[in-house]
Amino acid sequence: MLDTLEIPSTAGDTAVAPRSSRLASLFAARSVAIVGASADPSKITGRPLAYMLARGFTGALYPVNPGRKEVQGLPAYPSLAAIGKPVDLAIVGTAAEQVEAIIQEGIDVGIKAFVVFSSGFAETGDAGRALQQRLSALARANDVAILGPNCLGLANSATGLIASFTTALESSPLLPGRFAFVSQSGALGAYWLDIVLRSGLGFSQWISTGNECDVDAGEAIDFLVDDPDTDVIGLYLEDIRDTQSFRRALQRAAMAHKTVIAIKSGRSNAGAQAAASHTGALAGDDALYDACLRQFGALRVGSLSEMIDAARLYLCKSVPQGNRLAIMSVSGGAGVLIADESEALGMQLPGFCDATNAVLKTVLPSFAHTSNPLDLTGNVVQNTASISTALTAVAADESVDAIVLFVGLMHSIAGAFTDALADARRLTPKPIIVIWIGAMPETIQRVEAAGIPVFGDIPQAMRALHATRELAQLQAQARNSAHASTPLKRGQPTTATEAAIAHLSEWDGKQLLRGQSWVGMPQGWLLQEGEAIPEHLPYPLVAKLQSAQLLHKSDAGGVILKIQDQAALESAISRLCKIGRALKIPVQGVLIEQMLPFDHELLLGLRNDERFGPVLTIARGGVEAEADPDVANVLLPASEDEILRALQGLRYARLLNGFRGRPAADMEALAERITGLCTWFMGQALQELEINPLAIQGSHAWALDALMAPAKA
Amino acid sequence: MLDTLEIPSTAGDTAVAPRSSRLASLFAARSVAIVGASADPSKITGRPLAYMLARGFTGALYPVNPGRKEVQGLPAYPSLAAIGKPVDLAIVGTAAEQVEAIIQEGIDVGIKAFVVFSSGFAETGDAGRALQQRLSALARANDVAILGPNCLGLANSATGLIASFTTALESSPLLPGRFAFVSQSGALGAYWLDIVLRSGLGFSQWISTGNECDVDAGEAIDFLVDDPDTDVIGLYLEDIRDTQSFRRALQRAAMAHKTVIAIKSGRSNAGAQAAASHTGALAGDDALYDACLRQFGALRVGSLSEMIDAARLYLCKSVPQGNRLAIMSVSGGAGVLIADESEALGMQLPGFCDATNAVLKTVLPSFAHTSNPLDLTGNVVQNTASISTALTAVAADESVDAIVLFVGLMHSIAGAFTDALADARRLTPKPIIVIWIGAMPETIQRVEAAGIPVFGDIPQAMRALHATRELAQLQAQARNSAHASTPLKRGQPTTATEAAIAHLSEWDGKQLLRGQSWVGMPQGWLLQEGEAIPEHLPYPLVAKLQSAQLLHKSDAGGVILKIQDQAALESAISRLCKIGRALKIPVQGVLIEQMLPFDHELLLGLRNDERFGPVLTIARGGVEAEADPDVANVLLPASEDEILRALQGLRYARLLNGFRGRPAADMEALAERITGLCTWFMGQALQELEINPLAIQGSHAWALDALMAPAKA
Repeated sequence: MLDTLEIPSTAGDTAVAPRSSRLASLFAARSVAIVGASADPSKITGRPLAYMLARGFTGALYPVNPGRKEVQGLPAYPSLAAIGKPVDLAIVGTAAEQVEAIIQEGIDVGIKAFVVFSSGFAETGDAGRALQQRLSALARANDVAILGPNCLGLANSATGLIASFTTALESSPLLPGRFAFVSQSGALGAYWLDIVLRSGLGFSQWISTGNECDVDAGEAIDFLVDDPDTDVIGLYLEDIRDTQSFRRALQRAAMAHKTVIAIKSGRSNAGAQAAASHTGALAGDDALYDACLRQFGALRVGSLSEMIDAARLYLCKSVPQGNRLAIMSVSGGAGVLIADESEALGMQLPGFCDATNAVLKTVLPSFAHTSNPLDLTGNVVQNTASISTALTAVAADESVDAIVLFVGLMHSIAGAFTDALADARRLTPKPIIVIWIGAMPETIQRVEAAGIPVFGDIPQAMRALHATRELAQLQAQARNSAHASTPLKRGQPTTATEAAIAHLSEWDGKQLLRGQSWVGMPQGWLLQEGEAIPEHLPYPLVAKLQSAQLLHKSDAGGVILKIQDQAALESAISRLCKIGRALKIPVQGVLIEQMLPFDHELLLGLRNDERFGPVLTIARGGVEAEADPDVANVLLPASEDEILRALQGLRYARLLNGFRGRPAADMEALAERITGLCTWFMGQALQELEINPLAIQGSHAWALDALMAPAKA
Repeated sequence: MLDTLEIPSTAGDTAVAPRSSRLASLFAARSVAIVGASADPSKITGRPLAYMLARGFTGALYPVNPGRKEVQGLPAYPSLAAIGKPVDLAIVGTAAEQVEAIIQEGIDVGIKAFVVFSSGFAETGDAGRALQQRLSALARANDVAILGPNCLGLANSATGLIASFTTALESSPLLPGRFAFVSQSGALGAYWLDIVLRSGLGFSQWISTGNECDVDAGEAIDFLVDDPDTDVIGLYLEDIRDTQSFRRALQRAAMAHKTVIAIKSGRSNAGAQAAASHTGALAGDDALYDACLRQFGALRVGSLSEMIDAARLYLCKSVPQGNRLAIMSVSGGAGVLIADESEALGMQLPGFCDATNAVLKTVLPSFAHTSNPLDLTGNVVQNTASISTALTAVAADESVDAIVLFVGLMHSIAGAFTDALADARRLTPKPIIVIWIGAMPETIQRVEAAGIPVFGDIPQAMRALHATRELAQLQAQARNSAHASTPLKRGQPTTATEAAIAHLSEWDGKQLLRGQSWVGMPQGWLLQEGEAIPEHLPYPLVAKLQSAQLLHKSDAGGVILKIQDQAALESAISRLCKIGRALKIPVQGVLIEQMLPFDHELLLGLRNDERFGPVLTIARGGVEAEADPDVANVLLPASEDEILRALQGLRYARLLNGFRGRPAADMEALAERITGLCTWFMGQALQELEINPLAIQGSHAWALDALMAPAKA
């Protein structure tokens, strides 16, 4: 057995984050000044006032406008200073050049929070970026919160606070709900708001972070974790600069059993950058965002519709505790289509228990079977009482975790369905999901009023159900993982391309690697051309040309395998040195290593990422894996469990685990070795280490090749 | 070069199928009798009459009811014979036992077509099956058409013919459209009808085939190919019994440029049956339906919503000619999300040409870029004229095949968008697809009236666009392929499981295989234990235990590789014979073969399927491919092009084509060899041939192992 590894622990202070009155002043402001407030309710600085007046903001409103005595029926003040009463939040929508002075004026009179709609900052170029940096400095120096600039602001449905000019609030009432949204795009935020208001889901907090001169998405999430009105947090992300506080916020959300569903745009740019190492290509920016979200318990989706569909199940408390579905359908065909979707998504359709079957037999026509999917048949039209009997029996069956009921049309007996569903909902906390094609709007309303979500399309419903299962798993894993909350070592900012980083030769790299004991290496000798060959070498051998400037030895013909005797070895060495001379690279010598049999090979990459800090990349090794990548990325530090999970998540795991009687790798031992290597790597001054392949046999693992780049000075 | 292979050709008579007046009497009936017509418009035999009266059926209606003088305001007749005027179609909804006599009565008075709603036939058991067979015989003997029994009937929007009791017609008018549907499930048919009527798409013909005692889905498709009102044919399939006429109908649809989109349920049962050969597992019933649909130019989808989304693009004539998209968006974030979806679906986003960029620069704000995706920015609200200018410029750009325009909310300038879209639609035939989140219903109506489809969700729109690209490709391939329309050799009906089929030993199989020259074999010798070893054998060798009862030699330890000399060979032979004795199987001897180096390996399966006839299965070989199958099935006969396409469609093709400088297989030569082998197989009395692996090097291919089962007597 390997020694147990200690991960620098942790979880202690992740449960409590420093809270700040400045965020409460922002998101739960009780008194709001609108600088430059317009009398025109369609203008940017007129809308927030008009919205709050129309939707009954419960706090105080102070229009500031030196040119007017009154704005939208409220007394206007010539300046922030002239208000003379405590103000939590000031809304600023002036020209960019005036923003700093206005915020300074607000700070001077004790205002703790600002929402800046104004554009003309970092998004426009260097001059704007300088202006924005002055706002950041102002916020830091005075411990105030600034949301924006270049943002759509925020809305809080509990208090009616609307520090926003979004048109999404024009026509819909401010429906409260338990769903919050943090958006790095104002437009996407507006679309989300429009959808949740029109669909009747409602929201708690809605936050557009804009250019993030101060309050960023991570801090907004952190606030929402403690918001008693929020259960589900939706995110639209484009760029996270402070990944450490973002990770901490996600982890706090998981610990608090709050659900996070994120869209991260820009997936198509993944791997666009040229990368010197394979790891670089396998662990691009997008892949690391992906790893970060998964690892800290958030579900990544591709669209607002996917986000909202999954959120609906959470908001209806319809998230199954397990994977076992009962499908009930008024159409055999639809039942089979739902079964097809379920099995494609990895869900199980258990048979019902005897008691359930006995009840079902009493209500189904004689020719119908009590199998799962259960075909209620068109007979329900004649025998509406059977709906409730069957639903109650299936809901009580302990072999199922959730029920999907399919109905199509059947308007004449819609009442029997809605009554049966409401009854079943009262009898069992087990999730019931309804798919109803062609349902009347009033039917949908009645079913949803009973706390049961209704979908109009099979794949949409099944994808949402599957998403919640995946999310529940990610959340549980995030809670179980003890993550280091100590400051992470960040990668060096690289201005040059990766290709410019100096690498060590394999020989030099392996010398360094001998400082750890987690991953072994074959016996090896560095020989020069013409040098005497040592006797009793353990043939067969491999010979590899060594040069710090030769990263891909095989491609250049710099590796000769299966050398069986001394004569072949001598000829191999001179052949390799000749290649070195032809390539005009400085040759360090030829590395001779024993060839040992092994069962499996992996690529292991360790890298200090500029954005995410140290990252482990595990991929299937060999040329095939390049043709069809099979890869997992894990942000470090990570526990042995997390690394084992990453290994088991590879498609290749089926082979690693000993498919069809082939030799299996000892996956626990392998995870332990990799975890140890990660810890060792984090203690080294290395920018990157790539072991490719890592040869595996049973519980043993050794580096056949290693590429290393020291950290830049 | 290999010889050119001749495929038994074909295409001649696929363009014209035998037409029948009985189908015209059914689907375009001008005079309809309703047997047992009810005065109650909510009863099964009351609904068709009520529907046709309310929706203005243009033909004659004859209620038949001996108990009444008048039904729903029309004179009633005591019997079919009593009508005394020509009748095209009789609708029958009586008890199952009476159906045969009624149809016989109709036949006697010259009625050519019948729709039978009645249930109680094959779906209920043996007695019902016998009743149904009598209906089939009646139809065949008298050349009449029977739709059903146990079906929802049909509707024809052009004439108002509604021989159906579906409730989907209760509340919506009979909207004509160019979309037809053939359903093997009445319920799914009803849902489809409800959706296309409510969505405003409309339909041409709607056909529920029920138990298919006579008219089946294939024949219905065949009729729709010639229906001038139909452009797109939707299918819901559960079970195709006559796959040959089904294939012919699909192929005629492709030749006639009619679009076929199919749902085939029961995917999750794929491979549920135990199979003796790998091929059996890789080419289950569902995989062959899949192959059949693809090969004959139909797109398979998983849901009605997917079908209808893709159909909308065809019905709006918005199917791009190529893969190059222009994305225009009022939100940068949404543009990137669309780009993400596009690239994930393999679509290209080319840059615009100089002329386009020049125009765009005049209308975009100074900080905006003229890249693709194009961010029109919120500036359009101030400068609405820019919408039309930009749209027209992009539509005229020859580097793009289609335009996706994204809008969100912006109700105040919706008119500017609808006008610009209608203008652009007149200027260019290039497809324009609108994604508009939160659009007002009247806006959607205006845009769609201009012939431009509007979606409310990004992934939904992009999946539909991608589906049409895939479908266009499948259709073109189906048109280009010359398929044999000569009667196909069908597999023997197997009542026993496949495991019961007698197999040949590898040795016997290879003797048979020597009758063709497409696929080579290594030099081989069949030796017995104790027999003298021939001299000058080409070591290294492989030794394989031979027995017709040992299908998986490797698993039983029956294969010994890399035998380097005579002593090792002798010991291998006696070891193998010992295994044979331990297994208590009849041993034919030990097959000794030369081991030759090769670059790639495939599994090739050829099988006479009971449903689909001869089928080729190509899969990646080796244990890995079993862990993560990579497979293509091709119904035979197939052209060399089709087989090449199947090869190139494997994920493994990247390696076959010589990934990263590794040796490439000569794919054309390989396709030619496989095509030849297929033709040879079809001439043999073989149930199954599995070559696993087929070793490949350059243009050479040889069978390392072969499993064969003769056709059953």
